[in-house]
Amino acid sequence: MARINEHFRKLQAGYLFPEIGRRVSAFAEAHPEAEARIIRLGIGDVTLPLAPALVEAMRDAAVAMGTEAGFHGYGPENGYDFLLEAIREHDYRARGVEIDADEIFVSDGSKQDSGNIQEIFGSECRVAVTDPVYPVYVDTNVMAGRTGPAGPDGRYSGLTYLPATEANGFLPEPPEEPHDLAYLCSPNNPTGVAADSAALSRWVEWARDCGAVLIYDAAYDAFIRDEGLPRSIYEVAGARECAIEMRSFSKRAGFTGVRCAYTTIPREVCGTSADGERVPLRDLWSRRHATKFNSVPYVIQKTAAAVFSPEGRKQTGEQVAYYMANADALRRGLGEAGFVCFGGEHAPYVWVRTREGRSSWDTFDELLQRAHVVCTPGSGFGASGEGYFRISAFNSRERVEEAIERIGNL
Amino acid sequence: MARINEHFRKLQAGYLFPEIGRRVSAFAEAHPEAEARIIRLGIGDVTLPLAPALVEAMRDAAVAMGTEAGFHGYGPENGYDFLLEAIREHDYRARGVEIDADEIFVSDGSKQDSGNIQEIFGSECRVAVTDPVYPVYVDTNVMAGRTGPAGPDGRYSGLTYLPATEANGFLPEPPEEPHDLAYLCSPNNPTGVAADSAALSRWVEWARDCGAVLIYDAAYDAFIRDEGLPRSIYEVAGARECAIEMRSFSKRAGFTGVRCAYTTIPREVCGTSADGERVPLRDLWSRRHATKFNSVPYVIQKTAAAVFSPEGRKQTGEQVAYYMANADALRRGLGEAGFVCFGGEHAPYVWVRTREGRSSWDTFDELLQRAHVVCTPGSGFGASGEGYFRISAFNSRERVEEAIERIGNL
Repeated sequence: MARINEHFRKLQAGYLFPEIGRRVSAFAEAHPEAEARIIRLGIGDVTLPLAPALVEAMRDAAVAMGTEAGFHGYGPENGYDFLLEAIREHDYRARGVEIDADEIFVSDGSKQDSGNIQEIFGSECRVAVTDPVYPVYVDTNVMAGRTGPAGPDGRYSGLTYLPATEANGFLPEPPEEPHDLAYLCSPNNPTGVAADSAALSRWVEWARDCGAVLIYDAAYDAFIRDEGLPRSIYEVAGARECAIEMRSFSKRAGFTGVRCAYTTIPREVCGTSADGERVPLRDLWSRRHATKFNSVPYVIQKTAAAVFSPEGRKQTGEQVAYYMANADALRRGLGEAGFVCFGGEHAPYVWVRTREGRSSWDTFDELLQRAHVVCTPGSGFGASGEGYFRISAFNSRERVEEAIERIGNL
Repeated sequence: MARINEHFRKLQAGYLFPEIGRRVSAFAEAHPEAEARIIRLGIGDVTLPLAPALVEAMRDAAVAMGTEAGFHGYGPENGYDFLLEAIREHDYRARGVEIDADEIFVSDGSKQDSGNIQEIFGSECRVAVTDPVYPVYVDTNVMAGRTGPAGPDGRYSGLTYLPATEANGFLPEPPEEPHDLAYLCSPNNPTGVAADSAALSRWVEWARDCGAVLIYDAAYDAFIRDEGLPRSIYEVAGARECAIEMRSFSKRAGFTGVRCAYTTIPREVCGTSADGERVPLRDLWSRRHATKFNSVPYVIQKTAAAVFSPEGRKQTGEQVAYYMANADALRRGLGEAGFVCFGGEHAPYVWVRTREGRSSWDTFDELLQRAHVVCTPGSGFGASGEGYFRISAFNSRERVEEAIERIGNL
């Protein structure tokens, strides 16, 4: 009999967002009269239509695909030059960072990239994550066998959790002990807090000292409003030697249903082989990409490139500003309702302390059942998320204001 | 220091198709005068523009994405109902097969699916592949540590290779010994030979006897011209208990640069846990899909659904017929030039014996340098592919005929 991957059985319940979806569906089925009233501020899915410049690019590329001259079959594995060059220019060179085209790997999402990146590392690697944490980092390491089973607090043995708490401003310091891999996300999902250069420098220094690799998820970089905060980890000295960066079009350009992202691995970032040789991780990722991936659709890459056109930058920038005004309203409104709020200044998420020590899921259920508002329970992101919930700025202004009012009336 | 995944270092050279690309580029750079003359019959990339009904669907979906009512963010993880229903109806029910919607997982490609499927199995699983073989099946098991190093013939220890030879009509029988996983591809890439029901029945019987799971890659099913041959393995009795099937839009509908495919796992297909419990593989794949994947772009799923519309079926059917007429011409033309040809009757690939025992790569280089025709060396697909080359029917009629003439003149 074919034996299954036993590590899958260590995983707890469902992946968080499908679980939320199931609870919302169950509520809507039981209360059909309330279904239309439900305001979704949970999963963090964008709501504004795709920007006109992007629609135009996508439509034109679709039409081109029907012509002999404009048809495109298999694309270059790492992405079309037109997109790689736009990324280099606007996401890096404009911030004073030089990245070569062959250090960038275009993909269909940062979820995929941050889930797959662990494959190029040995199974004995010691992994550190912040807590609360985007579940993909943890679950994919569980599936790969880098952890033991979960304890009663939901934490997997063999994994290092670094609590992000009110006391440390939700920015944990690097661990005392050496590790091999550390996942960082800034602006952070779920806490909505962005790290400054000084905080990132301490991580880079630590990684270089102990030979660790930082997996830096910058999916929310476009929401940073303070020009002094780094958008790329490569703005921090030394990061080219130790950091892998993931960036996404999902939130910054309304791409959650369009699917495009990229991962950057500078040539200097190395792991070690059994015989002590230093091996560029870029080469391993390139082999994985060529073997297990087959490029992002041409029409999607054309749409992504349009994000960097003058109109695309203007229009997507306005969408980001629209969501950030929602975040401001949420911080203000929930604060006036007596909630203590964090994050949301450089991120589309506000991290909210539950009332009087109530649990995250109890609060989730209460908000769903009494205010018909969907949030994300903080404990779904890890033990240190207990006692908090995440509320997303991705919705219309009207619905966000309605949600604030309903929550205030509870 | 972060240790790398040591198994990656067992992989030989590059992945096959990038390696071919490099040789062709090197030739074109050295002989710029010949570049325009190169006819690519190697990688198996489609060349006809996307069919009009598909372009229309893609364009309309792009425009809808720019409207409030038509915008789509994150899609259902396993695919939109409109696509799942079309698949059930046209790919299954029309062939007398009942598959539930939640047994189908829409993805961005069969390369990805056939590479990722091994993740849900234990590392101790004994794996059988036919030889020659699509390299992804082998390489992804190497990366996962299910093999030892490669020997001088390029075969990895710990993997069972079943030679597909002229003697067995390129349809190897199941191995004598029990195994846990076996990869089958029919119509076959690279040999172009399609298995009949009797041959598949022997595999299903064997799998049920020894508790193996069949990974059945039917990416080329649309090229089957004999209505008596099965297009889905589920047309064979008992397959629902032991087979996972992969189907793709890439070749049947010109989707190599559009990216859509799906994997079917009936609820009955199980693996075994350490404590002897039978675990539905569908559930494990569902967990993987939800954790490491984020659905196919909405516009791409709308385009895929259009493949099943009356116009879409007619137009893509005509494209398939066009390519198959090329395959007929290749079989006839190369045969007249003195080559012994196999396959190509129910597949877009012709498998050709090299002349006088010359090696596959020597023949590749000769065809490239003297006829400026790109084929795929048989040995790139495995030791038993040595002495053959694969030639693809994916090109224009004119170029295929020109290629035949040039090869005949050698």
